[in-house]
Amino acid sequence: MARYCELSKAELTTLKDELTKEYENIKAAGMTLDMSRGKPAGSQLDLSNEILTAPIDNYITSEGIDSRNYGILDGIKEIKGLFSELLHIPEKNIIVGGNSSLNLIYDAMARLYIFGAGGSTPWGKEKTKILCPVPGYDRHFAICEEFGFEMINIPMKDDGPDMDIVEKLVKEDKSIKAILCTPLYSNPGGICYSDTTVERLAKMETAAEDFKLFWDNAYAVHHVYKERHLANIFELCSKYGTNDRILYFFSTSKITFPGSGVAIIAAGDNYIEEIKKHFGIQTIGHNKLNQLRTFNFFKNAAGIHDHMKKLGDLLKEKFDIVLDTFDKKIAPLGILEWTKPDGGYFISVNTLEGCAKRTVELAKNCGLCLTDAGATYPYKKDPKDSNIRIAPSYPTCEELKNAVDVFCVCLELASVEKLLKGK
Amino acid sequence: MARYCELSKAELTTLKDELTKEYENIKAAGMTLDMSRGKPAGSQLDLSNEILTAPIDNYITSEGIDSRNYGILDGIKEIKGLFSELLHIPEKNIIVGGNSSLNLIYDAMARLYIFGAGGSTPWGKEKTKILCPVPGYDRHFAICEEFGFEMINIPMKDDGPDMDIVEKLVKEDKSIKAILCTPLYSNPGGICYSDTTVERLAKMETAAEDFKLFWDNAYAVHHVYKERHLANIFELCSKYGTNDRILYFFSTSKITFPGSGVAIIAAGDNYIEEIKKHFGIQTIGHNKLNQLRTFNFFKNAAGIHDHMKKLGDLLKEKFDIVLDTFDKKIAPLGILEWTKPDGGYFISVNTLEGCAKRTVELAKNCGLCLTDAGATYPYKKDPKDSNIRIAPSYPTCEELKNAVDVFCVCLELASVEKLLKGK
Repeated sequence: MARYCELSKAELTTLKDELTKEYENIKAAGMTLDMSRGKPAGSQLDLSNEILTAPIDNYITSEGIDSRNYGILDGIKEIKGLFSELLHIPEKNIIVGGNSSLNLIYDAMARLYIFGAGGSTPWGKEKTKILCPVPGYDRHFAICEEFGFEMINIPMKDDGPDMDIVEKLVKEDKSIKAILCTPLYSNPGGICYSDTTVERLAKMETAAEDFKLFWDNAYAVHHVYKERHLANIFELCSKYGTNDRILYFFSTSKITFPGSGVAIIAAGDNYIEEIKKHFGIQTIGHNKLNQLRTFNFFKNAAGIHDHMKKLGDLLKEKFDIVLDTFDKKIAPLGILEWTKPDGGYFISVNTLEGCAKRTVELAKNCGLCLTDAGATYPYKKDPKDSNIRIAPSYPTCEELKNAVDVFCVCLELASVEKLLKGK
Repeated sequence: MARYCELSKAELTTLKDELTKEYENIKAAGMTLDMSRGKPAGSQLDLSNEILTAPIDNYITSEGIDSRNYGILDGIKEIKGLFSELLHIPEKNIIVGGNSSLNLIYDAMARLYIFGAGGSTPWGKEKTKILCPVPGYDRHFAICEEFGFEMINIPMKDDGPDMDIVEKLVKEDKSIKAILCTPLYSNPGGICYSDTTVERLAKMETAAEDFKLFWDNAYAVHHVYKERHLANIFELCSKYGTNDRILYFFSTSKITFPGSGVAIIAAGDNYIEEIKKHFGIQTIGHNKLNQLRTFNFFKNAAGIHDHMKKLGDLLKEKFDIVLDTFDKKIAPLGILEWTKPDGGYFISVNTLEGCAKRTVELAKNCGLCLTDAGATYPYKKDPKDSNIRIAPSYPTCEELKNAVDVFCVCLELASVEKLLKGK
């Protein structure tokens, strides 16, 4: 196999014919597989089935609260303790809220839009810009777009967002109010922020007094190949007196059951109290019985880590399939770059420029639904039309092998089409 | 016993001394009871304990959805069907959302604040006034206050808000954007809106094009003495082409477990789609396993009605204690008026003018915590300082008997103090 860019027009034309035939055969065989989202597989969910059947024998919490009744705005002691131990965040800085960290992020943005923070002008009342490391998580971007916040792309490096650019922008422009971070095993690149990156985010001078770090630690314990370390944002912000900028999110969605898990928001001493005041108007409290079921299943942080080891093993099988196939089939062709994440849920790939949309389109036309090309960028605009998020978790291993083969054919065809145009 | 207003100054003074002694004895005896909120009693919660222990044997819904995984923004078929049957709302108009209708109301207000409705100017961008039938629910008022919406008191009559006033105001003033309704067994008065009232609310001409009826049907099935009927707001708004104004809320908080129940928002065909668009940004979906647990417990509307019969019997004991004591001890004194609700959760009382705060204060000082006087009015300002919400559900019958006796002494003392000031 030769690198595609070294092929002559004639060679490319022949290759295109061969690939087109192969593609038509795939299409004729028919497949239906949705790999658009980072959904856990049934085998992953099965690991938590005890939650479905374990009775709640004791609904009285360690603090004497009847979990069946109203009350406890910020979560029962048990579950706050569990997350505090797991994430090394003081209990007083944690609010347990509902089933979805995405919902907590949306509500946090809405709160800032309407009320500002610490007495600042509400974000909805002035020009507001948000820094978005790219590629990133489409649902984060959708929230910013919903509120009309202007998103600014920040290039992602191997150790997190390009901090030279971030520091310069936040220092100069007070309309820049936040940066969206998925600091460990980022979606989609699997990037882990280095200690230096985290420290710079904690330390950096911001023109906006109400600047917020949206710290979506969605994959905090989602190790697959290797257990990567993340510096503690609370400790570093304490060191630099910038605790007010923390908005920390985490959930058990990709630990137990998505949609039936438990999510948290955490913040510095001042801002968590401000959030609690609004929470106290918004709700009487969240589902304490679900908190109790979740706690009973894990009991402590070690219980979560043991569970994540099993989950990681299941994910590793899937990641291996994708990465091995790419190594064997695609690496020699010089038409794709990809991340080899140590954990998380995704593999991020970059095609030749201008080939992502076409690859996804080709896949879709033969029944393989991938995440939309462009989705990993604000406004769905990938300037190079090259990034695609691969979400390998949901299919079975057999389905995934087939899907990656199909993906490779689509990618090869799209690449050849593109190269031919340049000849 | 003579009516207090007919007593001479000397008689009142003697009475005051007697009551003060009695009050001091109560205080010395000591009690601690929180009756400030409409919390279910343990005995009520026990009726739903099966939810704590019943396993989920089948997590695949009737539509083939794995309830353990992501997806289904508006609720699983089973639970939507259950609420549709119970409340006579088409399934397509229902979104099942989280554990708390209060949260859905807050979010609905926030949505209108930020986005308006149907392309209207966002409520946060212009003067917005909300009609508040009084006495009403303090948490509704707190939400309006949070968003800076001006609240306008509307007198409550026996058959709902004074519609002559409502119709006049909404027709004239386009800054009036909504009315807050708890149409069946209202909080706190237990008022049931008549068919005529509901029809007038559906039919009335509003200057605001994006006018909303906040229809918090919290006590839709909470019959105690008698099963009262509520006209179907969807049918009536359809009749008058005003479906866009409906914002309907309901939850199982006071049916199964508060905080662990299931809440819904429902709206007309257009607006429910608009809400879904925002929901789709805010969340991936709510807790489907809790929806399944709730459905499995009831199975159908008849299951809920059977359950509510048992709950109603438990509440009836409590209501009887309060109402009988008032009849025997207070009625002859002419110092209190009270509602005799057919259902719901509360009894609303009106003291002599200027006696509510003092009564609640006296109760608090001897360990009986009632709902704050004033709480049933916007901005906590009861213009006559006379309304108190009695929430009899939480204490045991023994505790409640004692509490009502204490309340009567506090009320009598406050009334005598007041009457003496006028002499």
